[in-house]
Amino acid sequence: MADLVAYPMNGGHGLYSYSKNSTFQRKAIDAGKELIKEAISEKLDIKSFSSSNTFRVTDLGCSVGPNTFHAVQNIVDAVEQKYQSQGHNSQLPEFQVFFSDHTSNDFNALFQSLPPDRRYYATGVPGSFYSRLFPKAFIHFAYSSYALQFLSKVPEEVVDMNSPAWNKGRINYSKSADQVVKAYTTQYAKDMECFLNARAQEIVCGGLMAFVVPGRPSGIPHPEVYFNTATELFGSCLMDMAKKGIISEEKVDCLNLPQYIASLEEVEAIVKANGYFSVEIMENLTQEKPPPKVIAFSVRSGMEGMILKHFGDEIMDELFDSFGKKLEESSSVLESKKSISLFVLLKRRATE
Amino acid sequence: MADLVAYPMNGGHGLYSYSKNSTFQRKAIDAGKELIKEAISEKLDIKSFSSSNTFRVTDLGCSVGPNTFHAVQNIVDAVEQKYQSQGHNSQLPEFQVFFSDHTSNDFNALFQSLPPDRRYYATGVPGSFYSRLFPKAFIHFAYSSYALQFLSKVPEEVVDMNSPAWNKGRINYSKSADQVVKAYTTQYAKDMECFLNARAQEIVCGGLMAFVVPGRPSGIPHPEVYFNTATELFGSCLMDMAKKGIISEEKVDCLNLPQYIASLEEVEAIVKANGYFSVEIMENLTQEKPPPKVIAFSVRSGMEGMILKHFGDEIMDELFDSFGKKLEESSSVLESKKSISLFVLLKRRATE
Repeated sequence: MADLVAYPMNGGHGLYSYSKNSTFQRKAIDAGKELIKEAISEKLDIKSFSSSNTFRVTDLGCSVGPNTFHAVQNIVDAVEQKYQSQGHNSQLPEFQVFFSDHTSNDFNALFQSLPPDRRYYATGVPGSFYSRLFPKAFIHFAYSSYALQFLSKVPEEVVDMNSPAWNKGRINYSKSADQVVKAYTTQYAKDMECFLNARAQEIVCGGLMAFVVPGRPSGIPHPEVYFNTATELFGSCLMDMAKKGIISEEKVDCLNLPQYIASLEEVEAIVKANGYFSVEIMENLTQEKPPPKVIAFSVRSGMEGMILKHFGDEIMDELFDSFGKKLEESSSVLESKKSISLFVLLKRRATE
Repeated sequence: MADLVAYPMNGGHGLYSYSKNSTFQRKAIDAGKELIKEAISEKLDIKSFSSSNTFRVTDLGCSVGPNTFHAVQNIVDAVEQKYQSQGHNSQLPEFQVFFSDHTSNDFNALFQSLPPDRRYYATGVPGSFYSRLFPKAFIHFAYSSYALQFLSKVPEEVVDMNSPAWNKGRINYSKSADQVVKAYTTQYAKDMECFLNARAQEIVCGGLMAFVVPGRPSGIPHPEVYFNTATELFGSCLMDMAKKGIISEEKVDCLNLPQYIASLEEVEAIVKANGYFSVEIMENLTQEKPPPKVIAFSVRSGMEGMILKHFGDEIMDELFDSFGKKLEESSSVLESKKSISLFVLLKRRATE
């Protein structure tokens, strides 16, 4: 039950807080919203949950809101509608929502911004979703938005200067040697396997799991992905500062981001190999490209903790200034890149 | 689901933090520990919980630890022992622990200090225990330590200068006019009724609830209670500062502490009138009298937030200095006062 990688989104409600810089992810949630409603209406068998009159929802990697509140409300509304449409008006379930994220997440901020008019019992669950978070057969609907691209850890080889997968001078894999890419795809597959195994225990048979992540369109190479391009630009800003002698190049070599942008085909193969879940919906969602300023703010709210730990406070403003400029200069390149989100909806199979 | 009164214990791990100043309460937990073990061994019917193989525990008013971790571990150990003693070795339940306190509690500190080797799934639940926190029939063992003496609010009359229950010049009821005492006892009874009604919904039939609170021995007047005497001394320090013109007397008149020290007879009458629970154990536990310095630190860790809001930061050190001195001067008076804790163990009745 320990956190492996835990650089939380910035807490609180300041200029660079996640709560003020998450409208970009909000679009993906909205796109998934209708699909989740449909899935609950068509694929959720409420009769199989009749033993308990409580419906339990979790958001895995919830951060601090407000996105998580919109997302869980959408699920609660859709389940209530389903009960009503089937004539179960008199026995609507009670709802319990489990907001989960790393132990270092700002749960205080999350709890203090809970919607006062919510119709569910709210709970916080600290820990990594790559291990168990709940007892067996406990959850009816698991949701995760823009979190499963984060790996449990940086693959060890990519920061090992004696390995052929050493990722010198880069913080991302997308333009790196095949060995680096392989190290990342292997880590992603391992992590997803852990994730699916843990959820398979926790989700009731017939229960649903939906997740949204930034994605790579089928057949498109890694460097053509918008998200990867932005990350590479960020890495090059660090290298610029290293070349100017402001930070040490060795430290940049040691910094690799624990994140991987998968395609639907990769996700599907992992889910099928795992076997606990059936694939109910898989879709590429068009993801609006955020303007450079939004990317810069978004990256800062997500990565400030990691940069701080690695390089200290002093470089922060200069780093993000130069990142902002580089994004502006590269706007036509960025414009040509592919930006999608993957939407995946799985159902826990009845038999193990 | 709103917090009515929410002045949390000091968070973090600093000099005046609750986590560093709660050894005083620890004694009461230890005294109750054996009683809880006994109760689980003798009064918990594990067969009636067989439908779910998860055993759910909550600590209501958990603050930030470490007391709460010792307390829930004791419960978990005792339940495991019970299963083993009945030959259910092969089907030990999974445990889920719900740490609950006001929304303003420092859940971040709580989560970050969770025991790494715990054998339970940990969850945080923000909100007042005077309203519902969980779905129906969800909890198997509810526990609360040194929290139920806090009222949901200050009785309105005692800060209303037009009321005969106006509590001018005092922050506690123990030496006040009968109307003031009555306002407090009435508020306490109302709050306990809310507490019992909420728990009656949430605790499974046959489930247990134990709580420990500072108490008043049967037949002993309010001013003879150690806890009340310490509070009155604290109030007199505020009045001293008002007389010196450092703070306004009106502000002291407006400050009343939302806490009430009940006797076993009062608790028993409320539980019986409520009717949802049977009384299984009720005991007066001898409570060691903490030395003055410990009281001063303990009061500071518990009341700093409230004083800060009411009078600002400036008076804090002077106030607690003078409180410390007054406690030293009054040590023989304090020595003559009665210090006990109440231990109460209830079982949820099978029929409503």
